Amino acid sequence: MSEMEFEKATVDPAARAMMVKAKKIGYLTTFDRAKAQEPRCNFGNTGICCRICMQGPCRIIPKKPGANKGICGAQDYTIVARNTVRMIAGGAAAHSDHGRHIATTVLHVAEGKAKDYKITDSAKLLKVAERIGVATAGRQINEIAHDVATAALNDFGRLDDAPCTWIETTVTEGRKRKFKDTTIMPSSINGSIAELLHQTHIGVDSDPINIIFGGLKVSLGDLDGEYLATDLSDVLFGTPQPTVSEANLGVLDPEMVNICLHGHNPLLSQMVVDVAREMQDEAKAAGAKGLKLSGICCTGNEVLMRSGISIATNFATQELAIMTGLVDAVVVDVQCIMPSLRSLAECFHTKIITTMPISKIPGSYHFEFDEEHAAASAKAIIRLAIESYKQRDPNKISLSDQKNKVVAGFSMEALLDLFAAVNPENPISVLTDAIKAGEIKGVAVFAGCNNLKGTHNENHLEIAKRMAAADVFMVGTGCASQAYAMAGLLTGEAVEAYAGPGLKAFLKRIGVKADLKAELPLIFHMGSCVDNSRTISLLTLMANELGVDTPEVPFVASAPEPMSEKAVAIGSWFVSMGVPVHIGVIAPTTGSELVHGVVTRIAEDVFGGYFIMEPDYRKGTDKLLAALDDRAWKLRIRSEARAKYAASEAK
Amino acid sequence: MSEMEFEKATVDPAARAMMVKAKKIGYLTTFDRAKAQEPRCNFGNTGICCRICMQGPCRIIPKKPGANKGICGAQDYTIVARNTVRMIAGGAAAHSDHGRHIATTVLHVAEGKAKDYKITDSAKLLKVAERIGVATAGRQINEIAHDVATAALNDFGRLDDAPCTWIETTVTEGRKRKFKDTTIMPSSINGSIAELLHQTHIGVDSDPINIIFGGLKVSLGDLDGEYLATDLSDVLFGTPQPTVSEANLGVLDPEMVNICLHGHNPLLSQMVVDVAREMQDEAKAAGAKGLKLSGICCTGNEVLMRSGISIATNFATQELAIMTGLVDAVVVDVQCIMPSLRSLAECFHTKIITTMPISKIPGSYHFEFDEEHAAASAKAIIRLAIESYKQRDPNKISLSDQKNKVVAGFSMEALLDLFAAVNPENPISVLTDAIKAGEIKGVAVFAGCNNLKGTHNENHLEIAKRMAAADVFMVGTGCASQAYAMAGLLTGEAVEAYAGPGLKAFLKRIGVKADLKAELPLIFHMGSCVDNSRTISLLTLMANELGVDTPEVPFVASAPEPMSEKAVAIGSWFVSMGVPVHIGVIAPTTGSELVHGVVTRIAEDVFGGYFIMEPDYRKGTDKLLAALDDRAWKLRIRSEARAKYAASEAK
Repeated sequence: MSEMEFEKATVDPAARAMMVKAKKIGYLTTFDRAKAQEPRCNFGNTGICCRICMQGPCRIIPKKPGANKGICGAQDYTIVARNTVRMIAGGAAAHSDHGRHIATTVLHVAEGKAKDYKITDSAKLLKVAERIGVATAGRQINEIAHDVATAALNDFGRLDDAPCTWIETTVTEGRKRKFKDTTIMPSSINGSIAELLHQTHIGVDSDPINIIFGGLKVSLGDLDGEYLATDLSDVLFGTPQPTVSEANLGVLDPEMVNICLHGHNPLLSQMVVDVAREMQDEAKAAGAKGLKLSGICCTGNEVLMRSGISIATNFATQELAIMTGLVDAVVVDVQCIMPSLRSLAECFHTKIITTMPISKIPGSYHFEFDEEHAAASAKAIIRLAIESYKQRDPNKISLSDQKNKVVAGFSMEALLDLFAAVNPENPISVLTDAIKAGEIKGVAVFAGCNNLKGTHNENHLEIAKRMAAADVFMVGTGCASQAYAMAGLLTGEAVEAYAGPGLKAFLKRIGVKADLKAELPLIFHMGSCVDNSRTISLLTLMANELGVDTPEVPFVASAPEPMSEKAVAIGSWFVSMGVPVHIGVIAPTTGSELVHGVVTRIAEDVFGGYFIMEPDYRKGTDKLLAALDDRAWKLRIRSEARAKYAASEAK
Repeated sequence: MSEMEFEKATVDPAARAMMVKAKKIGYLTTFDRAKAQEPRCNFGNTGICCRICMQGPCRIIPKKPGANKGICGAQDYTIVARNTVRMIAGGAAAHSDHGRHIATTVLHVAEGKAKDYKITDSAKLLKVAERIGVATAGRQINEIAHDVATAALNDFGRLDDAPCTWIETTVTEGRKRKFKDTTIMPSSINGSIAELLHQTHIGVDSDPINIIFGGLKVSLGDLDGEYLATDLSDVLFGTPQPTVSEANLGVLDPEMVNICLHGHNPLLSQMVVDVAREMQDEAKAAGAKGLKLSGICCTGNEVLMRSGISIATNFATQELAIMTGLVDAVVVDVQCIMPSLRSLAECFHTKIITTMPISKIPGSYHFEFDEEHAAASAKAIIRLAIESYKQRDPNKISLSDQKNKVVAGFSMEALLDLFAAVNPENPISVLTDAIKAGEIKGVAVFAGCNNLKGTHNENHLEIAKRMAAADVFMVGTGCASQAYAMAGLLTGEAVEAYAGPGLKAFLKRIGVKADLKAELPLIFHMGSCVDNSRTISLLTLMANELGVDTPEVPFVASAPEPMSEKAVAIGSWFVSMGVPVHIGVIAPTTGSELVHGVVTRIAEDVFGGYFIMEPDYRKGTDKLLAALDDRAWKLRIRSEARAKYAASEAK
């Protein structure tokens, strides 16, 4: 890659500097590999390559006689629909398995096992218990925790037709009816995943609409798994509160033992954080000033949200953290961990430490995580990192001067606390009133990954800046939030720099009353990917406050750089929830005009939500704003607030 | 296609005749579509195309810098392993979902719902109950059925680490230890499927061995689901007993209302069979001589095994049944139903009737199956077929003169009954003694689909004939058994024509004593794909009788023409069970030397079983026979029987 190519590859200056170094040492990064895959196979890229049986691969070639269908006779729409929903199944499996681990740990805590963990936030436990109908009066915390965890686990294995508890108890009445009417209300997360694989097996369903409905059911299972993961992570580790930290490669401290926590599940990473506090002396004994933890991907978000741990970088640039020569160990759990970390680590002293039985990298250190001995595992891992620190090669170090302040930690509870500073009786009305008054245009959720079909972090940053200028209240999760963190958008300075007058006034009004230690940021970081559940809680509160169902709320979602199957699952349940969902890549649905039309247009008629596929950030922003405008307009003309609004405007 | 090409396409004369007709009317069949897909994409065909995230598709090109790995850094072995095990997940989902439907119906019968069904075989119910530890003494049949069905359903949703009940109570002690030692014992079918999708999500597991072990765990979940499907289908509809019928397109009767039952699940098809008996008069009123049912794929096997319904054809030639112009309705449930049936039916009067909520074909009739109203659904379907019969166009009819006698219905119980005629005290020893005596060389299971990468049915027939000549005792299931049925191999005549002297003597000895109404066939048809569980019951009995674990039993399996993900799942659990498994195609594993080596060689060191990939039927036969010889040799030199055998040989 040339320097001009580096600029096209990423907008992040820290990453660019490390890419220069990678080039120097001759290591091909994920950016090089993405380039090497150009041009993408157009059959796969448009969804019309079928590898579901062993007669193929079949590739739909419309004009070639006999090849306009698969060997079994499957048409483009069947193939595209099947491929799409199998991605949803992969995403739902990943998210929900994460939730299952958390729920199992809560159960074991309640049973007196898993002694390294405890119920940290019993107020949240009680709130969840009451919501899902678990008795709380006069009961021990452990009894309640047992029943809540069991209810969560039942959402995975239920054998009757009862709806999944977390969905049933969190969405609007209108959505519940819609999900039941359209047969997409799941009763078992794992059962619906297995059923969807059956539905998409050779020679089962060839009806694309039926297949898509099966996919949406699984996507709601994904939401269920995410929601319970968030709830029970808060119960175990505490509900996030506003916190100040830093982000980007400059957080790696040359004088400290640097451990990157990477993956998605807080079970081990939070334990590393807790244990590290007591092990600073061991690091000092090794000649370092102490232990410095930093995060990559959602494990990073989990420990940022709850413990203020800094962010090293996000998905696409994970290799470049190692490239600094400063990372002594990367501790990984599950999801979005590049297998290439291991071969890159060979060039440095860095130890790659895998921890989960279903997530190994050949040649890495493996400390199998075991919740019964979690603290001991965490200690052993930290000691390995300290040993590794001693082998650090000064000649291979490249300091980065890039780091930015981060204000994060906005759980739904924390957000409501802020609003309550303005209106303690009805906090959510602070937000909805501002929308009704026209002060802010609506709410946008930014979520998802990096995707090197575009420029790393560019879509994230450019869309957010434009939405800010248009007075949109923004929340973020996942690698999207990390992109903002790395670029300094999660700060008060960013509000000054980018917010339009309405948003600025809105944030200032709250900031003054809330008396927070830090200033309010431009975008409110709500957590990891599973914490997209928090945004649904926000949407539902808004809908109920506005007296409408979710498809009428001026609320949009965007994954500016979606990559993983989890993003497909999240996008799909956002659509089911009635939300317009922008994605910054063209998904592999264009091979079927029918399926592409369903997901981008017809879905709106049924669910209110639909996909907007737009790689160009300018157009993407415009389409998101148009969707908000459309909803705000519809809402105002039918709500009582319309009259008031008009009156205040007339003044 | 030219006539020479028809001969290369299929060895079945009935099919060839209909292919001529298809050409005449200008309809492109699956044979034409298979040809149109040539050459197959080599990336997909060797397993090195990755579509697991949206950055790709990635294709491994070893010599292109940067493209020797995926964008995330996944190596060929990770990509091939992931693609392979996701096929296992698809197969396990399909089979087990079938089992879950059956188990749910048994539960509802026990609860007094599902009144159109009943417990037909309470002896089998008691046997299963005792095996899995459900109390039977002094209890009502419905109480026992309730507990057995609940135990089966628990195998899908279990939340603790206890092993799946059906596996735990049916395999050898040695296999149980092996499965636990290698961490592949499943505790939940659906849970293991979801976990495997998580394991194979972007950035989770990159260790191909660990991924394969995850796949094998799911494959055992597949076996568990198959086993309980077989057991509970027998409980509901009766355990198959030897029956005589016919097979091939000539079974379609020009004077009857012809209904083809197609798919895999007996819940509806068996009801159609039962109801049809009472509806002959309605067919006569419409001018027909009556109702003629015939089967395609495993639904066909289910009703052949239990009710002697004839077989129309197997997977690859399902379109050609419609091509006769004689099929008034095709009633389908799930799996292996070509979506093309619908467009072909447009050329005729044939009605395509879908029946399951997860299996629809746009433009078809849909009678949603509902176990509470199963008989009514079956009646409505038959009435639609009778209406359709009236629209039959005589000018479009092409009679086939191809049909063969079939002797089928060999459940494990029926097979043991035969052996008991020779040795009532220890039936299975009749088989093992014959092996020890060198009379027969061992046992081969033939299973699986059609795959048009080869010639339709050729591998099935040619391998079976050669194995027969080499004195191998053969059992069959699925479309393999249907290939034999269509060609007349499930008959005594075939024994005369093809069996070697040892096999002939063995079968004659049993036949004489057993006093069966029909002669014994060359291959014993044990049922549908899920009834491969019956063959594991046979293997386990043999191992226990021989006093060895399953990898030492002279027992091989072959899917001469495997196509579906179910075949991948079945093949994988046969390998885990210690069985050499021939498949007549090269699976998409060759893109990774490591993975290909593991599944074809290294697997033997761990599990005793391994895959033999060999499209050539001569070589395939040789390799299967070599595997049997190897085991017989090892067994004899280490068992006590060796001495006796040597002595008898010396005489």
